[in-house]
Amino acid sequence: MKVTSKKIKFENALSLECGSTLPSFELMFETYGELNKQNSNAVLVCHAFSGNHHAAGESNLDSSIGWWDQMIGPNKAIDTNKYFVVCSNNIGGCGGSSGPTTINPTNEEVYGADFPVVSVVDWVNTQKILMDYLGISKWELVLGGSLGGMQALQWAISYPENINKAGIFAAAAQASTQNIAMNEVARESIRKDENFYDGHYLKNNTKPKKGLKTARMLGHITYLSEEHMDLRFGRKFQDNESKITRDVDFEIENYLQYKGEKFSDAFDANTYILMTKAMDNFDPSSNEDGDLKKALTNIKSKLLIIGFKTDWLFPPKKGKEIQLAAMEAGIKSSFVVLDGKHGHDSFLFMSDRYFKIIRSFIES
Amino acid sequence: MKVTSKKIKFENALSLECGSTLPSFELMFETYGELNKQNSNAVLVCHAFSGNHHAAGESNLDSSIGWWDQMIGPNKAIDTNKYFVVCSNNIGGCGGSSGPTTINPTNEEVYGADFPVVSVVDWVNTQKILMDYLGISKWELVLGGSLGGMQALQWAISYPENINKAGIFAAAAQASTQNIAMNEVARESIRKDENFYDGHYLKNNTKPKKGLKTARMLGHITYLSEEHMDLRFGRKFQDNESKITRDVDFEIENYLQYKGEKFSDAFDANTYILMTKAMDNFDPSSNEDGDLKKALTNIKSKLLIIGFKTDWLFPPKKGKEIQLAAMEAGIKSSFVVLDGKHGHDSFLFMSDRYFKIIRSFIES
Repeated sequence: MKVTSKKIKFENALSLECGSTLPSFELMFETYGELNKQNSNAVLVCHAFSGNHHAAGESNLDSSIGWWDQMIGPNKAIDTNKYFVVCSNNIGGCGGSSGPTTINPTNEEVYGADFPVVSVVDWVNTQKILMDYLGISKWELVLGGSLGGMQALQWAISYPENINKAGIFAAAAQASTQNIAMNEVARESIRKDENFYDGHYLKNNTKPKKGLKTARMLGHITYLSEEHMDLRFGRKFQDNESKITRDVDFEIENYLQYKGEKFSDAFDANTYILMTKAMDNFDPSSNEDGDLKKALTNIKSKLLIIGFKTDWLFPPKKGKEIQLAAMEAGIKSSFVVLDGKHGHDSFLFMSDRYFKIIRSFIES
Repeated sequence: MKVTSKKIKFENALSLECGSTLPSFELMFETYGELNKQNSNAVLVCHAFSGNHHAAGESNLDSSIGWWDQMIGPNKAIDTNKYFVVCSNNIGGCGGSSGPTTINPTNEEVYGADFPVVSVVDWVNTQKILMDYLGISKWELVLGGSLGGMQALQWAISYPENINKAGIFAAAAQASTQNIAMNEVARESIRKDENFYDGHYLKNNTKPKKGLKTARMLGHITYLSEEHMDLRFGRKFQDNESKITRDVDFEIENYLQYKGEKFSDAFDANTYILMTKAMDNFDPSSNEDGDLKKALTNIKSKLLIIGFKTDWLFPPKKGKEIQLAAMEAGIKSSFVVLDGKHGHDSFLFMSDRYFKIIRSFIES
């Protein structure tokens, strides 16, 4: 399945939750499958922290495969023979939508650190604008994993009339204290890179690659399960020939060095900060004195909440919290815990049970 | 209890496990209580990663209280009315013993990155040299938590004739893959600080404080229990007046910023790297094809192994592994799991059960 990304500029000013306004904004997005005549087969996929709009298929541009290609495509769990699937890059990201690496129309300079703080609510609002542009009145399903699952939950809250079902995978209604703490360490390593320049590194023709690398190495540990790391790497030593740096002794060190280095070439440091802040700040209950049940009261969609046993970033108990609140609020919901070998990243990988559950949910 | 540290220079060359030799070395240490006529009441306390020789009492120098003062003193679990307690700063440390911040006698320059790689085995060997110097033939008990517990276990293995009992708390016979991974992220943040100069920062009249701060912030998360963090900080916002930096939103972020900053003033970055490497590399089973039972076979001392429920750095299952191997090897051992509110750091804090267990062990 060859796919081509599209970019749309929305000329109306966009008010953000933080109080700032974007004078205009662009969204990069992809679609898979065809919208039917009744406009009843549209599905929105929301990407996680370091994801983007290229969710499925093979990019016409660079032949890369979408990050959820196991999930989306002809005859896959989200079957593009039946459904019209949309995925957009979140604003504040670095995948083509307006963000720290794009040009601020006010002064024609790159935004850098001047790009305002964005939130899950803001992303959902921009996705609603894209929805209207595409002529879709109701999503049959909005789904995502991790930060993408937070968006799916927020969709059900923000636009109850425009969504039939929400799929919330490996997610939480609130980041935990430990989540925030880990994200703050990652941000600290970026901010203290000598090439960060208070976020204005692009204007200084440089990038805080070292800080971004350390941040990603830490993030990567939180995405994998401890068991998986033990099984795959254990305490095996790296052979000398393939050591990335002379400081490395163990395979796991070399692996993290490799992953961190690769990521720091491709990703943007300001986006890293914005995305982790959006994750930390997400908390629908905060408008209701901490009562998640009240925050969910107006939901009209059905919720499918999936947690993965080996996920220690957003463990299954976080999904259970959402389901309990939904039950109290009288919202239809299912909560499923899957094994998942890949820790937090398990939401990315298809399995028989995962497939069947999503299939039966979307077709219910 | 006022205490004065002592420093001894050992003029004989010291061969290290890594193959290097120290031409001479100094040990900084403290003692509490009096050695009895029979030389039968000596106790060795081994410090953890960022600890030092000042384990108990009030320092004559700066009035600071020792890191295990809750454990050691008159009428405490390790009763200095009865026992003669010794604690030395590990070589490679930054508490006064030979290490990266001291002078290399070969060239009269500060060691810096030239200080050789040290190991738990090396530390035990230097403690044995100190033992001989002090005229002690047998420790009634060697004990420690975390990296200190690794030393207590190594004492039982290296010098079976010179130790009656070993207390191994919040420790492991091997660091896990995740432990190594976390330590590598911390080391990466230090090495990539622009003031690191490949470890020769002192010669360049600077210190990699930023990298060391980030490393400690991460370390600190692994020392606390997730439940404790949730209870103490939750998702509370930091009030504006007491924010350490403008980047901080949540209390937990401010707390980590504060702890990291303070630590980076006091600790040495090369020592951080050496100590974490010693922790990662510790593995008594590695000389026996990975068979821990064989590594323990020659032990003659009794082992008391304590794990803490909320410890996710070296969780109780790591202590259980030691006990199972000890049982198979026919070594007398007890394994106790305590609640411990403080995660990995629980070994530092006295409780009724902890007190009783240590008391009955030392007096058994």
